[in-house]
Amino acid sequence: MKIGVLTHPKIPVSETLGAEISEWLRERNVDVCVGSSWDVEKISEQLETLDILIALGGDGTLLRIARLSATYSLPILGLNLGRLGFLAEISPENWRAALKRVLDQDYWVEDRLMLRVETRRNGKPVGESIDGLNEVVVSRGGIARVVRVTTEVNESYLTTYVADGVIVSTPTGSTAYALAAGGPILAPELRNLVLLPIAPHLSMARPLVTPPSAVISLRVRTDHRAILTVDGQFYVDLEDGDRIIVAASPNVASFIRLGPRDYFYNSLMERLQWTI
Amino acid sequence: MKIGVLTHPKIPVSETLGAEISEWLRERNVDVCVGSSWDVEKISEQLETLDILIALGGDGTLLRIARLSATYSLPILGLNLGRLGFLAEISPENWRAALKRVLDQDYWVEDRLMLRVETRRNGKPVGESIDGLNEVVVSRGGIARVVRVTTEVNESYLTTYVADGVIVSTPTGSTAYALAAGGPILAPELRNLVLLPIAPHLSMARPLVTPPSAVISLRVRTDHRAILTVDGQFYVDLEDGDRIIVAASPNVASFIRLGPRDYFYNSLMERLQWTI
Amino acid sequence: MKIGVLTHPKIPVSETLGAEISEWLRERNVDVCVGSSWDVEKISEQLETLDILIALGGDGTLLRIARLSATYSLPILGLNLGRLGFLAEISPENWRAALKRVLDQDYWVEDRLMLRVETRRNGKPVGESIDGLNEVVVSRGGIARVVRVTTEVNESYLTTYVADGVIVSTPTGSTAYALAAGGPILAPELRNLVLLPIAPHLSMARPLVTPPSAVISLRVRTDHRAILTVDGQFYVDLEDGDRIIVAASPNVASFIRLGPRDYFYNSLMERLQWTI
Amino acid sequence: MKIGVLTHPKIPVSETLGAEISEWLRERNVDVCVGSSWDVEKISEQLETLDILIALGGDGTLLRIARLSATYSLPILGLNLGRLGFLAEISPENWRAALKRVLDQDYWVEDRLMLRVETRRNGKPVGESIDGLNEVVVSRGGIARVVRVTTEVNESYLTTYVADGVIVSTPTGSTAYALAAGGPILAPELRNLVLLPIAPHLSMARPLVTPPSAVISLRVRTDHRAILTVDGQFYVDLEDGDRIIVAASPNVASFIRLGPRDYFYNSLMERLQWTI
Repeated sequence: MKIGVLTHPKIPVSETLGAEISEWLRERNVDVCVGSSWDVEKISEQLETLDILIALGGDGTLLRIARLSATYSLPILGLNLGRLGFLAEISPENWRAALKRVLDQDYWVEDRLMLRVETRRNGKPVGESIDGLNEVVVSRGGIARVVRVTTEVNESYLTTYVADGVIVSTPTGSTAYALAAGGPILAPELRNLVLLPIAPHLSMARPLVTPPSAVISLRVRTDHRAILTVDGQFYVDLEDGDRIIVAASPNVASFIRLGPRDYFYNSLMERLQWTI
Repeated sequence: MKIGVLTHPKIPVSETLGAEISEWLRERNVDVCVGSSWDVEKISEQLETLDILIALGGDGTLLRIARLSATYSLPILGLNLGRLGFLAEISPENWRAALKRVLDQDYWVEDRLMLRVETRRNGKPVGESIDGLNEVVVSRGGIARVVRVTTEVNESYLTTYVADGVIVSTPTGSTAYALAAGGPILAPELRNLVLLPIAPHLSMARPLVTPPSAVISLRVRTDHRAILTVDGQFYVDLEDGDRIIVAASPNVASFIRLGPRDYFYNSLMERLQWTI
Repeated sequence: MKIGVLTHPKIPVSETLGAEISEWLRERNVDVCVGSSWDVEKISEQLETLDILIALGGDGTLLRIARLSATYSLPILGLNLGRLGFLAEISPENWRAALKRVLDQDYWVEDRLMLRVETRRNGKPVGESIDGLNEVVVSRGGIARVVRVTTEVNESYLTTYVADGVIVSTPTGSTAYALAAGGPILAPELRNLVLLPIAPHLSMARPLVTPPSAVISLRVRTDHRAILTVDGQFYVDLEDGDRIIVAASPNVASFIRLGPRDYFYNSLMERLQWTI
Repeated sequence: MKIGVLTHPKIPVSETLGAEISEWLRERNVDVCVGSSWDVEKISEQLETLDILIALGGDGTLLRIARLSATYSLPILGLNLGRLGFLAEISPENWRAALKRVLDQDYWVEDRLMLRVETRRNGKPVGESIDGLNEVVVSRGGIARVVRVTTEVNESYLTTYVADGVIVSTPTGSTAYALAAGGPILAPELRNLVLLPIAPHLSMARPLVTPPSAVISLRVRTDHRAILTVDGQFYVDLEDGDRIIVAASPNVASFIRLGPRDYFYNSLMERLQWTI
């Protein structure tokens, strides 16, 4: 068995914890590979040889690791070092008991839908297609002007949004930016996408939940700069007429879970920081 | 082949049209059974012998017919006599061409998820379980006071809504009352339920989209009268402590469709009466 | 000086506290009149002779007292016995220090706008006009059907709401039912009214903030029972065609305040139970 | 009498119309000064000598002219060349009848609240203070990251928004960007400001309507670029810790009106493009 342990270069405690975890694992005859969660090259080289990835950090770290490891279906165990997150499973206080259960194979794996996004300019791809675990956002650049986004689902015209931007979110992303923009919450095991505008101006405002097979096309109309963002990371500058195609990815993100299957409902209110 | 033709007793033109349609069908050697869409007893007797139901009316009529015929998986063809509806397929202007295609078997059948609702008082059922095509609503009665609804999904506690009421909606219902209460729009082929409160007071406001297998339990806490409504029809008075269980029904509502499979996206804006 | 002390008949501690407060006041040569806040007749008789009213209870109690005493501009001091409220100023822990300041005239009086509502049937008044401190609501009765409400402002047609109901709220009411229905929060010293629908169905959804001089007319269109509610209390059954006229009342509700003038902004998040 | 006629350099018909209007006015012994609405320098020189400004264009043109002429209380007559606007009063079809009424002094002047915004860095002003007729927006720059905005009203702490941005809107702006972000509509004669976030993430989402005297302070917290926008025009780059102060301006924008005083309610639905 080989486990990768990814520490966070900007969180000092993560180095110490990573070392403790590695030692603990090696004492139990586990092959361990330690690295920084920002060292994309090294991680990518090792992914094929690993059975499990342990990532120390917050939801942002887990999003990045999930995108990197998506093609390997590698189960990820998140150790949360930030505020209460939606993706991490264990905490600095309980990692020994948790890892013991992992070594005993006493866990289940939760697969989360990822989306795949392609950009086309004049009918040709711009860059490679990319997978996202939270959402893809087409939005205005630095100038505070609306973008117009002509939207089709399965090649049927839906509407033209006039808005700050348009989000296509996964169920995982439904508790992130899509929630801020007014979207519904989707149970994490769903394979649907949610389409919704950000600050729509006299255009359709309601989120649309599409089936797993849906192919969503967003054609950008703007006189200014527009940008494409995936999981909160800038991805590409968009020009007037660019078409962004979003659909379910064949890859999924896999997370190791130790709690009950329906944990999501029970913990939702706390994670949303509602007091009632 | 045997077709039922259901007219609307309060819309005079429906009688004339129903007679024309029946004659047209009989001329083509179809066995026809004409009746009022309000005559529940007669319809129920005939359902088992029919191959297709043609219903003249609006969305309200089609909701009722769908509930009546749910156990027989009988395809329904809606002829719209009201405003633009979400369920009807044909209009008084185009019925001949449409029925010709139906007799030629040139159509497809769209199955819509129904929900099943049971009420339990002190652990025992109150009345029979009932199927709905749009939504079930637990809400205040005549007094303008909030109800408290303790909500579980798959026996996991979710939250306690303090609100005018709580809606559990099907995808079909997502363009009806759930939309008015702030819910997302679900593509019609989905099998998910949507849970959302009506006018929530300092409690969780966001709609939750659940998987097809979800079992939603709503326990009512109120000092006053509360009511249970299915598809806009009053169903039963609720008492403090009553528990309402909602899940996907094994039955579906089947509608005859003559247009393209992705008609929904194309016609959504018009049906929502958005001008842009 | 004469002070009325109103206890809450359903909250036992309120009797004890009321007795302590009365004794404390009498020791300081204040003329005290004790009563139940539900004893409308007795309160009404005494109002004219009082300088200040101390009311023990929650926001519901203070709403009722404010309506009763509106014509006398009597300053009310709320002692909160419930959850955190928006109207009460003092608590069971700090009443001695607070009353000392009141007797020293070391306080300011906050006037809150009240609204006045009249109902007209066939051009004639139905019952008397009534003042409200939170809101007036025209809504469906026990049946879960929409009402249609044709709405004018200053005799100019605005829109026809198709909804569960329509709210006209004061600034004080903007943190109560209007907030649950999606309304904005108004600073308490404003004299504007807010008009908004509850669960609007394909009709105008946005709240409208009107000037102090606005006269709002709501004409009800319904096949079923509709009801008029003022400050959460049922007021009258409405019939199809009834017209409800709402405007600012000449009366205001006056509350004794001991904190800074801009207390509202500072305490808003806590009162809304937002944790961030 | 001297009237300025401002044409729009990018709308060809505006030149022709401007010439026709100028000739028509000169025939009636009015002193006319024609110019481009983009020629800020020339307009500014002339403003002091003018009695009325006629501006040909859409709402964007009128916003700019209003900011330019704010210190002179110059009444503006908007001739709408775009889609249905909120500010323009006349159209290419009816200008002769309208101008005749203006020369006959058969009109009223509607004053609209403007806001004044100052930016402070390390306690010192950044640039000059500026007036806006619609809104001021503090928002993220080109990167799709939230900004944190610590907000005070009258030096009382309100909340810290975590959002795409924060808007402070006038009543005029309440039907523009603030509406898209979820704000209420304010009657145009009000002098209140509305404060609301854009896509708030687990922070206070509700719009707050403040009194005319309110001073709103927005302190920006961000690791990235943030920007300050006034009436949709980029104004200044913001740095972490910058404080933006917004209050009612002593200036107002004055528009010539020919219709009834309560025109706003009657035309609102049409201007919002609601079909019902």
